[in-house]
Amino acid sequence: MSPEFTVRASSHTYPVIIEPGCRHKLYEKINHSYSQYFIITDTNVSPLYLEEVKRSFKKTAVVYTIPAGEGSKSLEQFEKICSFALDHGIDRNSVIIALGGGVVGDIAGFSAASYMRGIDFIQVPTTLLAHDSSVGGKTGINLPGGKNMIGAFHAPKAVMFDPEVFHTLPEREWRSGLAEVIKHGLIYDYSLYSWVCENVSARQVPDTSKLVYLLERSVKVKRAIVESDEKEKGIRAFLNFGHTLGHAIEAEAGYGLWTHGEAVAMGMAFALKVSEEVFQTSLDSGKIINQLEQLGYHTSLPENMNTDRLIDRMKRDKKGINGQIRFVLLEAPERPKLVSVEEGMLRNLIQIGGVK
Amino acid sequence: MSPEFTVRASSHTYPVIIEPGCRHKLYEKINHSYSQYFIITDTNVSPLYLEEVKRSFKKTAVVYTIPAGEGSKSLEQFEKICSFALDHGIDRNSVIIALGGGVVGDIAGFSAASYMRGIDFIQVPTTLLAHDSSVGGKTGINLPGGKNMIGAFHAPKAVMFDPEVFHTLPEREWRSGLAEVIKHGLIYDYSLYSWVCENVSARQVPDTSKLVYLLERSVKVKRAIVESDEKEKGIRAFLNFGHTLGHAIEAEAGYGLWTHGEAVAMGMAFALKVSEEVFQTSLDSGKIINQLEQLGYHTSLPENMNTDRLIDRMKRDKKGINGQIRFVLLEAPERPKLVSVEEGMLRNLIQIGGVK
Repeated sequence: MSPEFTVRASSHTYPVIIEPGCRHKLYEKINHSYSQYFIITDTNVSPLYLEEVKRSFKKTAVVYTIPAGEGSKSLEQFEKICSFALDHGIDRNSVIIALGGGVVGDIAGFSAASYMRGIDFIQVPTTLLAHDSSVGGKTGINLPGGKNMIGAFHAPKAVMFDPEVFHTLPEREWRSGLAEVIKHGLIYDYSLYSWVCENVSARQVPDTSKLVYLLERSVKVKRAIVESDEKEKGIRAFLNFGHTLGHAIEAEAGYGLWTHGEAVAMGMAFALKVSEEVFQTSLDSGKIINQLEQLGYHTSLPENMNTDRLIDRMKRDKKGINGQIRFVLLEAPERPKLVSVEEGMLRNLIQIGGVK
Repeated sequence: MSPEFTVRASSHTYPVIIEPGCRHKLYEKINHSYSQYFIITDTNVSPLYLEEVKRSFKKTAVVYTIPAGEGSKSLEQFEKICSFALDHGIDRNSVIIALGGGVVGDIAGFSAASYMRGIDFIQVPTTLLAHDSSVGGKTGINLPGGKNMIGAFHAPKAVMFDPEVFHTLPEREWRSGLAEVIKHGLIYDYSLYSWVCENVSARQVPDTSKLVYLLERSVKVKRAIVESDEKEKGIRAFLNFGHTLGHAIEAEAGYGLWTHGEAVAMGMAFALKVSEEVFQTSLDSGKIINQLEQLGYHTSLPENMNTDRLIDRMKRDKKGINGQIRFVLLEAPERPKLVSVEEGMLRNLIQIGGVK
């Protein structure tokens, strides 16, 4: 009922713990020799779980709370965190604890990677979306010109999930995270995808035992990929399935208006269509897109999105080389491939409504 | 006459080339498969050497010029560089070339470490001071609260010295760099220190053959230390000899008013005195301090420095743990040691004029 397994990074191997109620005993599970415990959380999570987590600490923890939302993944917020750390005596022997969703994990992780050229950090993801970003060591912040354009590979010392906290997730947050589970299924584990379609809805958080099962399956897909390609020289890029258009939509709409998963779900629907076009094959995309709709996702682009600007955003994607747009496509379920796609084809598919 | 040797980092091994005139053929020495060449330089170096360097490139290089001076090692400048890179299509297959002194190398290196989670970079140091910082993979920028508080370990793909460019160094810049050579001598290679005292003045740049000799000897000290302790878990900290007070003086005076080396020379004189006090031994500090004065360094603190504020700055030093001030001291020449020093002793030594 409480899976525990490890993830191998180039710098060290770290445990992933999935344990209902573990927020009450975080301190027990952490090395006690740190000089200080620096919790970074946000305004959503703080009123719900900060006190419960802090109570478990024998030493006083230093806390910094960022405003909830993607807007906090900024250089401005990063500077505030580092200056705060400096003012509160956080040193090279301290540890940062990221208590929150993906935004908290990403900026706390980048802070840990860069503060004094790198200190330890621990991921305590409180959203389903963060089950993906918390494993694998990617950290990052946004530039006005693009998402995660600044960052570092910095593996956490541990990742600890308390699935009980997912019961307080708003429906949109839950749906956002489920998109990454679906992505893991489509690119690597189709039976996980089928299990999701049969056992879970994107409109309601399931019971704790289903959460534990889903987390373990999905994190293990992530682990398999990052263990064979930690620094994204090859197959790790497959995790960007749905993300090329997804990131462009998020940036274009203004961070925070679309949830990440909503944009990725739309991006996956689009990538399925592009895949069929590029490989001249049928992926039964109609059926999958229907399933996505049934789960509760939008799969056609809103009319106010400007094609030129979306194309422009996609050109700046980190996967791009020499101005070419590269997409993760599927030759078949579980068979992803990174492919340069002609701008003209993308433009056509976007203009006829993206998908449908 | 043109030494070439390698430095081993955990990620890869890279060459150090010391070759008079090599600025005219940089491109020959670089991998030609990069998608773009992004030169970062500053307003001092640009009018002197940028055109000569650019001419050697077969492909057009993208150039960004920062204002000369420590003030540019800021998050604000970092954001400008990354946004500029994004706007100019710099991608994961591009390379950053740091053409300049330590400030350029540090911020260009941190940009390379963080832009798209890390791209390649090459150090082309144009100051003697940068001979030290360009080898070993440390990169960083300053926070208002402290120097190099944000950074990363990111080893360059190559370090290329053209000693001819040192002939245009202003006297103060030369003197600043020579302090790091002296430091390398005192902590690791006393015969290099003696050679400097006999063959070089801090008031005038020597001829090219002496420059080549001095660079090779000094870089090899740096190499020996960083190869045995890349991430500063142990002996790499010895390179901070003279830097605990030195950094405090720089920050207290406002970055840029004192050159780094001037502050470090003063810090070394102070650390010699602290060493004699802590180890109750004679290091002939009077003689060494005399030699430093003869070379052209100030070794007593200016009267307007506030003791409390210097102590406070030293407490925030990255070597500190749990608020203790830790100094690199010498038990004897070539025998450095990292030691916690009592605040009271430091306070006394500062108040009696630091040294003398």
